[in-house]
Amino acid sequence: MSQDPSIGTIGAYAAAGVDIAAGERAVDLMRASVRSTHSAEVLGAVGSFGGLYRAPGAAGQALVSSADGVGAKLKVAIALDRHDTIGRDLVHHCIDDILTLGARPLFFLDYLGLSHVVPETVATIVDGLAAACRAHGVALVGGETAELPDLYRRGDYDMAGFIVGTVAEADIVDGHAVRAGDAVLGLPSHGLHTNGYSLARRVFADADLHAVVPELGNSLGEELLRVHRCYLPEVGPLLGTGAIKAMAHITGGGLPGNLPRTLPDGLGAELDPTAWPRPPIFELIERRGAVSRTEMYRVFNMGIGYTLVCAPNDADGIVAAIPDARVIGCIVPLARDAETRVTGLV
Amino acid sequence: MSQDPSIGTIGAYAAAGVDIAAGERAVDLMRASVRSTHSAEVLGAVGSFGGLYRAPGAAGQALVSSADGVGAKLKVAIALDRHDTIGRDLVHHCIDDILTLGARPLFFLDYLGLSHVVPETVATIVDGLAAACRAHGVALVGGETAELPDLYRRGDYDMAGFIVGTVAEADIVDGHAVRAGDAVLGLPSHGLHTNGYSLARRVFADADLHAVVPELGNSLGEELLRVHRCYLPEVGPLLGTGAIKAMAHITGGGLPGNLPRTLPDGLGAELDPTAWPRPPIFELIERRGAVSRTEMYRVFNMGIGYTLVCAPNDADGIVAAIPDARVIGCIVPLARDAETRVTGLV
Repeated sequence: MSQDPSIGTIGAYAAAGVDIAAGERAVDLMRASVRSTHSAEVLGAVGSFGGLYRAPGAAGQALVSSADGVGAKLKVAIALDRHDTIGRDLVHHCIDDILTLGARPLFFLDYLGLSHVVPETVATIVDGLAAACRAHGVALVGGETAELPDLYRRGDYDMAGFIVGTVAEADIVDGHAVRAGDAVLGLPSHGLHTNGYSLARRVFADADLHAVVPELGNSLGEELLRVHRCYLPEVGPLLGTGAIKAMAHITGGGLPGNLPRTLPDGLGAELDPTAWPRPPIFELIERRGAVSRTEMYRVFNMGIGYTLVCAPNDADGIVAAIPDARVIGCIVPLARDAETRVTGLV
Repeated sequence: MSQDPSIGTIGAYAAAGVDIAAGERAVDLMRASVRSTHSAEVLGAVGSFGGLYRAPGAAGQALVSSADGVGAKLKVAIALDRHDTIGRDLVHHCIDDILTLGARPLFFLDYLGLSHVVPETVATIVDGLAAACRAHGVALVGGETAELPDLYRRGDYDMAGFIVGTVAEADIVDGHAVRAGDAVLGLPSHGLHTNGYSLARRVFADADLHAVVPELGNSLGEELLRVHRCYLPEVGPLLGTGAIKAMAHITGGGLPGNLPRTLPDGLGAELDPTAWPRPPIFELIERRGAVSRTEMYRVFNMGIGYTLVCAPNDADGIVAAIPDARVIGCIVPLARDAETRVTGLV
């Protein structure tokens, strides 16, 4: 019997307001989509206390792992009662995190804490996880759904994702080769991705999520639920070529908070914010919330969801391989008394 | 720079009631205890988007993973403002889950969702995670702390743990060799472990957690926070010997819900509940809550936290190796119309 993901224990019993039948129905609903993610590397005929995945056979491989959530974006999904995208956000976020080290994903597990199991809602969430896993060759090997009516308000839930990938130790991208003069390339984001939602929700507290906003060409709700972009399809073919010296996933903290995380000490990045268009959602938040530009760059990705650093000579080749990548700045020596490692934004 | 676990992104900014400085102080407080879990297998000099762990070198290894939470036990910790044990619960729970497949743990990551980062509280929680990881040779390689004031009530938090371990494919314990007549051995639990707390909290809703309960020899709060037992020290030496045919971790669902998870179709277990003492906390819950015996066995571990199945001839050897293990029943053919696969309990 293969594992029943997302439902390891529905720590649950009717006597305390917890519905075991609902949990079992949720498992039935999600089983097919979960199994659709399983490759030959998933070892099947075992019990359900753990997911089994064949270890990378080659010597000198590293396992790269990350745990993540999707933050207050959940509250937008809950407000709209639309749960088909949030699982894709979570998987894409996790894939992008380990991709920065040069890793390709192997398998994924989820944790779902909620007030009450509504089987169709749980199944929709897990369908989203499974669709993203399937699209990117990731096996969804397990998970836990915990019904915690004492902790979550009715209808609320929180979600965490856990991913494991692999990279040859020799191919780990860790920024050690970055030098002043290297090019910084940016890849466009799809809206807010999964960061800045506490602020965005405050700015739009009295807005109608269903109303179409002309400058967005979309309803506010649709815009806020746009799915976190997964950069594996574009960046994957470049892994192992040696062209990429460092990568960053632009999450909480924005470009200033994330780009320096993989730069050697003593180096910073000088960026040119006119090098890419700022999507209208950010202009709207800035204006409506009277948020300072500095704060905007610290909270939001501002249109760049992922960055690459390469030698100047390699930039054209990368842009040819990833058509929507563009050079957004360069690596510079850091002044000894510098207060920030990313300059030029404001 | 090695990863800053448990704080990947404090998706957080002062403008929306989120305190970045508190997050950074939490990271400072937890750094030393996290690093104390790192062995030579943790690959250090890298960025912070993922944890890096050297893959098992041998061919034919499987990676075994599990995601878990600690359920409503968190609410007891929160009520008592005592956060040093809950991390140990989570790590032990995860280790026990993958141990059932014969796996030894390699590395662990956590997710912590909370209303507001109180640095000392977060550091205490992570100290508990790190202490348990250190004690059992597990590397704490990463994590995520998400400040979500819109989702959690002030002071509340939820927690998930993710573990990866390894086992030689040939040594996977999956129950396939279990036969009628095999012995079922039980290992004692340390109280409720991490299941049944929604019900227990309802039963003790008007009780003083600080008052000493004579029949427990302990305050109710101390009893309810007793740390989930980790069975790796006792069971580890038996792995790979071929003596163990199946194992189960007795979590939500109790003995009836978990023991059958690794038994082949057509087999069940006949247990003798007089074979082990029921700890007084379960008698107290049953009496005070007027909970049926059937329900008690479905919700709580009732004194047995872990089970092993072996050939009858091997039982004495296992009991000699694990002094507090005892034979609690045997494997029986399952009647075609059986409503439950575990009989004899009530």
